[in-house]
Order: sequence, then C-alpha cells, then structure tokens
Amino acid sequence: MSKVILLILDGLGDRPIKELGNKTPLEAAHTPNLDALATRGICGLQNAVGVGQRPGSDTSHLAILGYDLDKYYTGRGTIEVSGLGMELQEGDVALRGNLGTVDNNLVTVDRRAGRIEDTSPFVKDLDGLTYQGITLHIKPGTGHRAGIILRGPGLSSRISDNDPHEVGVKVHEVRPLDDSPEAAFTARVLNHFLHQAHEILKNHPLNKERRRAGKLPANYLLCRGAGYYKKIEKFSERYGLKACAIAGGGLYKGIGAFTGMTVLSVPGATGMADTDLSAKFNAALQALAGEFDFAFVHVKATDAFGEDGDFLGKKAFIEKIDQATEVFLDLPDTLLVVTGDHSTPCSLKKHSGDPVPLMMIGEGMVRTDHVTAFGERACATGGLGRLTGLMIMPEIINLLGLAPLIGD
Amino acid sequence: MSKVILLILDGLGDRPIKELGNKTPLEAAHTPNLDALATRGICGLQNAVGVGQRPGSDTSHLAILGYDLDKYYTGRGTIEVSGLGMELQEGDVALRGNLGTVDNNLVTVDRRAGRIEDTSPFVKDLDGLTYQGITLHIKPGTGHRAGIILRGPGLSSRISDNDPHEVGVKVHEVRPLDDSPEAAFTARVLNHFLHQAHEILKNHPLNKERRRAGKLPANYLLCRGAGYYKKIEKFSERYGLKACAIAGGGLYKGIGAFTGMTVLSVPGATGMADTDLSAKFNAALQALAGEFDFAFVHVKATDAFGEDGDFLGKKAFIEKIDQATEVFLDLPDTLLVVTGDHSTPCSLKKHSGDPVPLMMIGEGMVRTDHVTAFGERACATGGLGRLTGLMIMPEIINLLGLAPLIGD
Repeated sequence: MSKVILLILDGLGDRPIKELGNKTPLEAAHTPNLDALATRGICGLQNAVGVGQRPGSDTSHLAILGYDLDKYYTGRGTIEVSGLGMELQEGDVALRGNLGTVDNNLVTVDRRAGRIEDTSPFVKDLDGLTYQGITLHIKPGTGHRAGIILRGPGLSSRISDNDPHEVGVKVHEVRPLDDSPEAAFTARVLNHFLHQAHEILKNHPLNKERRRAGKLPANYLLCRGAGYYKKIEKFSERYGLKACAIAGGGLYKGIGAFTGMTVLSVPGATGMADTDLSAKFNAALQALAGEFDFAFVHVKATDAFGEDGDFLGKKAFIEKIDQATEVFLDLPDTLLVVTGDHSTPCSLKKHSGDPVPLMMIGEGMVRTDHVTAFGERACATGGLGRLTGLMIMPEIINLLGLAPLIGD
Repeated sequence: MSKVILLILDGLGDRPIKELGNKTPLEAAHTPNLDALATRGICGLQNAVGVGQRPGSDTSHLAILGYDLDKYYTGRGTIEVSGLGMELQEGDVALRGNLGTVDNNLVTVDRRAGRIEDTSPFVKDLDGLTYQGITLHIKPGTGHRAGIILRGPGLSSRISDNDPHEVGVKVHEVRPLDDSPEAAFTARVLNHFLHQAHEILKNHPLNKERRRAGKLPANYLLCRGAGYYKKIEKFSERYGLKACAIAGGGLYKGIGAFTGMTVLSVPGATGMADTDLSAKFNAALQALAGEFDFAFVHVKATDAFGEDGDFLGKKAFIEKIDQATEVFLDLPDTLLVVTGDHSTPCSLKKHSGDPVPLMMIGEGMVRTDHVTAFGERACATGGLGRLTGLMIMPEIINLLGLAPLIGD
C-alpha cells in the first residue's frame, strides 16, 4: 500500500502585496522544489471549513483530517490537553490555562506571570482538588501554560473564560453560556476551584521567593477555551492508516494526540522560524519507512510571519521550506499532499477565509494537471478544483484505492 | 420545449496510464465526435456521490438522476427487481437472487448452477410460498438470476445475504443487521423460505434430468442486496419530463423502471462490448421525436474494460462510442449531456472516487467554454467546474428554462 505525507504549512495562503509586485509571499518566493512537485501533481484550492469561512488552527486541522466540526469540535481545551499527554474521558471538560499575576483587587497585572518558565511546582498543589463530585486535574505546559481537566458527572463546556485576555482589568467570573443546569453547575464549580487556587497560589512559598527576586508572582489561574470531550474515532481506525504526527507547536501535537495519532518527538522541531525542517521531514520519511502509513507534518512559522505582517519574512521562510522539500521530490509509492490550514494574509495580520493552495503528488495515482507552480493563483486553475477540508481525506483515501464502496 | 439525452458511459473515468503516454483511455482515444461536442458545449467534472466517494452503479445513477441516497436508497434489490418488471409495493423487501448448486452439507459448489440458462421452471414452484403473513414473490431474470420480493407487514431490509459470494463454503444463515424486531422477523421468515425452497428444488424433477445430463442441479436460492421499498417520486412527475430508459444491463433497466421511466427494449442492446450502440442511440432519437422528453441512455462496457484492467480495450470501445455519437452532432433543440457514473481506473480494476468528465451541449442554452476535448483533464478546466451527482438534474432543468423559483 502507498504511504501518505500530509504537509500542512500553517497560515500559508496570502493576498497580493504591492511591495512584492502584487504577488503573494508564496508566489513571490523562489520555490523550485514546490513548483516541481506542482508540475508532477494535481492542484487546487481548499477552504478548510467552507468558502469564506475563517477557521482557527484547531478547527481547520480537524476538518482537513476529516473530522466534522459539528460532531467533534466543542472547544480548543480538549485538543490542548491532549497535546500535553493528558488522557481524556467521556464527559470531561478541558481548558487551556495560564498562570498569571493579579493584584489584591484581582486586576490582571500580567497574563503570563512574568513569562514564568516552569509552572510545575505550582500546579502540583492544585492537581486533585475536588468539589461537589468534580475533580480538578492540571498538568504543566510549556512556559506559563497548563492543561486543565474537570472530571465528574454533569459538566458542560458552555461556560465563559475567566481569562480577560488583557491586562489592567479584573479577572472575569466564569459564566454559563446557556440555560442548562450543567452549564450553571460547571461555572459554579470552576469558580470555586479558581478561588481556591488563588488562595493556594498567593500563599505559595515559591511566590514569596519570586517576589524577593523581583519577579511577578504566579498567583492566578487564567482559563479559556473550554471543550467537552466526546469519544472520537481514532484516525487509524477511521482510515485504516497507522498515523504519526510531527509538529513543534503544542496545538498541533494536540491535534495528533486528540485524533489518536502517535506524536513523534523530533529534536529541533520548535514550531518557530528556527525549526529544523530537515529533521522534521526526515523524521516523516523514517516513520513511513517503518511502522507508519500516514505522516501528518506541521510547519508553524508561515502563520507567525503572516500575523506579524512580515511578508519578507514569510517569503524567506517559504524558500527555506522549499529547500527542505527536496527530500520529498522522488518518493516511490507515496502520496504527498501539501497545503495550508488557512490563509494568514500579511495585510490582515490574522487568519482569513481566503482559500489555500493544495497539491497532491503520487505517480499513477493523480491526474497530473497543467499547473507548474505552487501558488494561490496557479492552483486555482488546477484539476482538483475548489475543495473544502472535509473533502481532502476522502480524496486521499480514494487516490490510495482504499475508498469503501457506497452502494453496490 | 427542448428535449434531453442523458448518455451515461459506465465507469468512463480513469487514471493516467504509462503505456498510453500517461493519458487516460478517454484522453488517448481518437474521439473527433466527442471532442466536437465538447467544443460546442460546457464541460466539467462530477463525483456522483461526493468528492473522493466511491459509488456503486446503483447509487451513482440514483444521484445523477437527482434522487438523494439518504432518502431513496436502501439496497440494490429494489432496483434489480424493478428491472425485471416486478411491481413493488410500499413495505416490500426485495433481493437479488441466483439459483446455485450446493452439496448435501449446504456447501456452495457453483453460485450459478453451471450457468443455468433459464430458471423459470424452478422459480415458478417457489413463487407464492407464504409464511407468517409474508408471501414470497419470485421471477426469473437472465441466466441463473431471479428477482425476489418478500411482501407483508413488519419487514426490514436490515438483513445479511445468505449468498456466501464464493464457492467451497457453506451458505450463510440470514442474520438481522440491527436490533429491531422487524430485522429479526425478516431474517427468520427468509431463512424459512430458503429452507423450504431447497427442499422443493433438490427434489425437482428437472434437477434429476440435469443430473442425468451431467449438469449441476439448481438446488439452492442464493440471495443478496436486500432493499426496502418506499414509494419513490416518479422521474416524470419530479421533473415534468416524460422519460424513457435505454440500456442493455439489467441494473440500468432497473434504474429506469425504479424511477418510473418507460424502459424501451432495443434489439442488440446487450450491456456488453458487442452492444449495438447505433441501435441504442437511434432508439433515443426516435423516442424523443415521439412522446418522450428525456432519454436516459446507458452504455456498460467501458466499466467492464476498466474492471478487467484492459486499457486498450477501453480505449477502443470509447472510439466505437465516438463513432456512434455522430448521430448526436447536430441535434436541433436538444440538450445532450454526456458523462460517466463513476471512474473505473484500469490500474485499480474497480470503481473509484475519481471524478468523471461531464459535458452539456445545447445551442443557446449553455455557455460554451474553451474546452475542445472530452477528457478527464480537459474537462477539469471547463465552465461547469466540479459538481456532484445531485447537482446535475437541477442544472439540466435550469438549462431547459424549467427550474422552479426559490423565493419570490
């Protein structure tokens, strides 16, 4: 059976930029390898969650991996905690957490407690708190981050964040977002835990040390992105392909873990512009030479440059990707799929609903089209036409010759 | 009002084939008439049941004719018995049947009873059996085949086949496929009939004759593809077009009958490579010159060549189709639609979810595009874009100027 590489370049798509001669960063970049792949492959455009729809990174990835958002997406929390290796159980509510600094009036001074580097000694004192039949599970993430799970009967993810998402304002009470008793109960329980956590943290001996050292105390747990966990069919069972995920960013490892992939740890994969692309791409090839059938490879920095409006940086980073892509040029018996999760136009400095180029390369599998460059406008005329995210996995499974028959 | 010809070339789509210079059979074939039609028409690609989805011949045709599978498709049995001219009633369960040969241990020796040529004398002894309020209706099909209807209250099509689909294994018990009492009841009743049928058949005087003549006895009724019949809106009522079906294969006559079309009998239409294409195409023209508005014309052998992996045969048969298509070149006041039901790539030797070329030709009706060849990749750049099966009939009705207004 042929193997599959799904390479997702985060925030890849863009809009024409005057300074680049009205080309996009991808169009302006010198990309001989990506263009060679486009020449051999079939190209198109895709909108992960629909035409004109502006997806988050969580929703776009779920859709591209074939998971219907209506059924499988309830909030980013479940995906983030999966990325931290926390095991979810049906009925859990998961949240993203930060350790932050508040003053005596609960006004936020710093959402990241002076960019604290390790929350472990703090969160271990919060892990296992219980209230009204609900247990708080918490695990440190990178830097100021933590993953939070509420576990017990009668929970809902229809609750607001306590994180005010800005400094200088009071932390929010968690509020129910609908009229269900479950949402009211969850908000009450979480507010209780957050109050209790503040009491524990503000008196924490390490915070006294931090103060003495002139550092901001990590005295408040800021939460956001509540998600309710329903059992999700594992990617490998859904498609019959043993899958691994290779990513630097926590969310993308989380996407892999959440969908039941094996998350491979690759030294040098940072999720930033300094990431070791060759290490990641070679790790994918190695994984496919071994036990895996499907490698999801994520590259993050294209998105970060877009969010910074740095079109020269984005162009240069795409050229770096192009060089690393050389190892994918002559893969025997492999279907290579390259796309983005969404566009992040430098002019907008945020995600947009502009479609993203998509190409599929696999000898004898795809109907090579006339497109000879990997770019937004070149791909718009390609043989794949315009797809949505949920069409991509069925197309991959079909090209592999593994699609189940519908009918007789 | 303009007339419509919908010509479906079964399994038409394919993948690039090295021996054909990386062209598909359709692209490699010399097709001056089809190309002339593409030049005058508007082209596109279509996936009958969705991008990447791999349809059966039954489901793809229903979708192309505008029938939503979720609502109208429960199994192939209903369509096959329709093709034999059996009238279905709401609540019937219909199955495809074979007369086969089993040994004394009910192990299948031949699924077609030595390719028996006429099952009439056997099945007439089974027709009308009753058990627990259910009547067995059975009618001979071509060769070893028969159509089976279970009629009576409380039936379900959620039952398994007794046909083991291979020789050397014991025939299966029919099992319920869900927990409903209806499925359990239907399985019980059908198992009873199958047991009773075996008793009748094994003692049948004609089987004694067959044995004496060294032929395999037709001593077992093998069933598959149970479908539950819900009343279906007739094609002519749905679209206001009096429709006829012209096909060689039983399933396709069945599609016509199932959707309420008049199935025309055309001498020489065999559903195989030796079919008389000119007779079929002329029959369509004659029907449209008479009482009919819409002619569904089906050509089967393209699919059979794909399933055999015979790309040269497929290419040659497409050239034969092209020659016969000459009669469609200058039709006044007619919308001609040519497509396939699905792809059957010679490399896969089975149906696939690759999209199929589609062209619509009708002077003054369609926006003629730049496409000048009828082929997978040429059509990918056409003005119709990439459609699904359920979009085709609305597009036809719209081009005819008959679409109902949505809104005011």
